[in-house]
Amino acid sequence: MQNPDVVQRLKSIEGHVRGVEKMVEDGAYCIDVLHQIQAVHAALNKVSTLILDDHLNNCVVTAIRSEDLAKRERVLSEIADIFEAAKKV
Amino acid sequence: MQNPDVVQRLKSIEGHVRGVEKMVEDGAYCIDVLHQIQAVHAALNKVSTLILDDHLNNCVVTAIRSEDLAKRERVLSEIADIFEAAKKV
Amino acid sequence: MQNPDVVQRLKSIEGHVRGVEKMVEDGAYCIDVLHQIQAVHAALNKVSTLILDDHLNNCVVTAIRSEDLAKRERVLSEIADIFEAAKKV
Amino acid sequence: MQNPDVVQRLKSIEGHVRGVEKMVEDGAYCIDVLHQIQAVHAALNKVSTLILDDHLNNCVVTAIRSEDLAKRERVLSEIADIFEAAKKV
Repeated sequence: MQNPDVVQRLKSIEGHVRGVEKMVEDGAYCIDVLHQIQAVHAALNKVSTLILDDHLNNCVVTAIRSEDLAKRERVLSEIADIFEAAKKV
Repeated sequence: MQNPDVVQRLKSIEGHVRGVEKMVEDGAYCIDVLHQIQAVHAALNKVSTLILDDHLNNCVVTAIRSEDLAKRERVLSEIADIFEAAKKV
Repeated sequence: MQNPDVVQRLKSIEGHVRGVEKMVEDGAYCIDVLHQIQAVHAALNKVSTLILDDHLNNCVVTAIRSEDLAKRERVLSEIADIFEAAKKV
Repeated sequence: MQNPDVVQRLKSIEGHVRGVEKMVEDGAYCIDVLHQIQAVHAALNKVSTLILDDHLNNCVVTAIRSEDLAKRERVLSEIADIFEAAKKV
């Protein structure tokens, strides 16, 4: 995938993480730092949703419509794996 | 809080996010990008745990042992809030 | 869907929740109760994964291979929604 | 802990899980079942928050104000563990 919106959001997340570093160096209150880290998680979740959306509407549709059964199986089990992993982090 | 281990880990997370940007720009496979994003979530969770640990053993102990009831209440309800928020991201 | 394995697991989760009720009534230690609740979450996650797997391999494949574009769109956006919601609970 | 509100909520969660079993037996649409399971997760989270709140305001305060250092350490590390585990389910 190549998605300028996703790249832009990741750049902003990178800046956000840099801001959290600065807070810790400046001795900010722990709870404020934890809230900023939760905001980074939320921003990453938004990126994951955009990527998954793209993936479902492109790769997954192509794979399922193809006659290549092995590819179809693989693509579907990747989705199930990602869903399971999503709940572990 | 000022914790060099936490700062170091955040710097490494910042680099990790930059790596994910590069993957997206290079057109990497969506599922591989999603797995890298999940690794960033896991690294951020580790940082949160370190910060909370520090917080519990310092601010929370001090607050609870003080006679300032309002402060004690505030500190305990912040912990409950962070716990609840942790499940939402 | 009708899946006897899923029904069996849900029955066992129901019994697990009843066990947690009993713990609370008997005045068990809070942390032990919280760990049992986390075990219930994990068991529910396993059930969700089984259901999603079934869904991907049946409804989703059928929808994508059909010529009904509206249905295809709906099925894909349902998956993206479930993935997003999974991270919020 | 013995908390009638918590017991009542757990009874209602038990009924909710039984409802999900019934949906699966009746062949409900997978996505609807998944949404109901997510509602059960949310209800369990609410219960965990109530229990943790109770725990923080009772056991944790008592432990920290006592002179028993080992107990204090144990209670604080239990909170950190529960927080970490909360993000894994």
